[in-house]
Amino acid sequence: MSAIETLIDALQVLPGVGPKTAQRMALHLLLRERDAGVALSDALRTAMEDVAFCRLCRNLTEHEICSVCRDTRRDQKLLCVVESPSDVIAIEQAGGYQGYYFVLNGRLSPLDGVGPEALGMDQLVDRVNQLNPEELILATNPTVEGEATAHYVSQLVAGRIARISRIAHGVPLGGEIEYTDGGTLAHAFQGRRDIG
Amino acid sequence: MSAIETLIDALQVLPGVGPKTAQRMALHLLLRERDAGVALSDALRTAMEDVAFCRLCRNLTEHEICSVCRDTRRDQKLLCVVESPSDVIAIEQAGGYQGYYFVLNGRLSPLDGVGPEALGMDQLVDRVNQLNPEELILATNPTVEGEATAHYVSQLVAGRIARISRIAHGVPLGGEIEYTDGGTLAHAFQGRRDIG
Repeated sequence: MSAIETLIDALQVLPGVGPKTAQRMALHLLLRERDAGVALSDALRTAMEDVAFCRLCRNLTEHEICSVCRDTRRDQKLLCVVESPSDVIAIEQAGGYQGYYFVLNGRLSPLDGVGPEALGMDQLVDRVNQLNPEELILATNPTVEGEATAHYVSQLVAGRIARISRIAHGVPLGGEIEYTDGGTLAHAFQGRRDIG
Repeated sequence: MSAIETLIDALQVLPGVGPKTAQRMALHLLLRERDAGVALSDALRTAMEDVAFCRLCRNLTEHEICSVCRDTRRDQKLLCVVESPSDVIAIEQAGGYQGYYFVLNGRLSPLDGVGPEALGMDQLVDRVNQLNPEELILATNPTVEGEATAHYVSQLVAGRIARISRIAHGVPLGGEIEYTDGGTLAHAFQGRRDIG
């Protein structure tokens, strides 16, 4: 197999990239972006070899302890449980939340053989004992598995934390009630808050 | 910048990949495809460092002369001129054509400063003299620049080759006449052939 064919094959490991797209990517790099291609190769190698899970929160990091857990200026009273590192990125980009995180790197899914031990529940208990937060915020996804996972975590830490909360589910900003699905609308009504 | 941020940035050099897609790709590799990520890094480095243009046909190859030009079993009577290495891949995958290629790696585009010298026209003349084909097939794209390039090449080699041809343009297989654009239909009528 030629170097180009090997590259086209290797690119197809990327999600959403099939043979045609991989070919376009390979030729784009070869014809126009050699230096950036080498930089991408270096970035891939470094990330694949150096990045592991933070010892405290199980987020991805190339350090033993990630930058969030190392940041002592954050709000030690808050701990937020999420399913994936991409959730941490989204919440950080949204701004506003200043507490710490715990990343499950999955959700409970007995059919796929994903039980509590695969989600680092022991580490979560350790983290709770160590950080001693006043509130645990459950920010797993509003899916069947996500809800089950949130329920499991809330049972696990019950009694250890004063307040256990679940993020609100309702009509998204910019969304229209007319086009919002029934489940979301039901949540929006159940979660209604007094104003004024 | 962390290793993950560097990777997300580097992935955006790929065509059609923005920040969100790059993040999804990076996390996919880190969480599920470490080995494939390392393989992709290696494939990228090898291709970026080793692949250059074939000395004879200007196709991309990691050898001095590409596998097509090295293949002495091909039809020496035919030489096909294309704009891009991806055109060679498409024609090879279609099967049927057994001759040699010449890859311009571009098309005449005076407004972008792309003149004949950038398209290796000297090399094309050398190749024609060396191979001495009976027919030169112009398979540049049916765009204004592609047609101008085909015209230029036909003038350049006029007198040196017995037959100079242009691939047919018309209604694609599986296409419907009803939905075919006017320019294509005009070509289809001009290029009509006697049957039976």
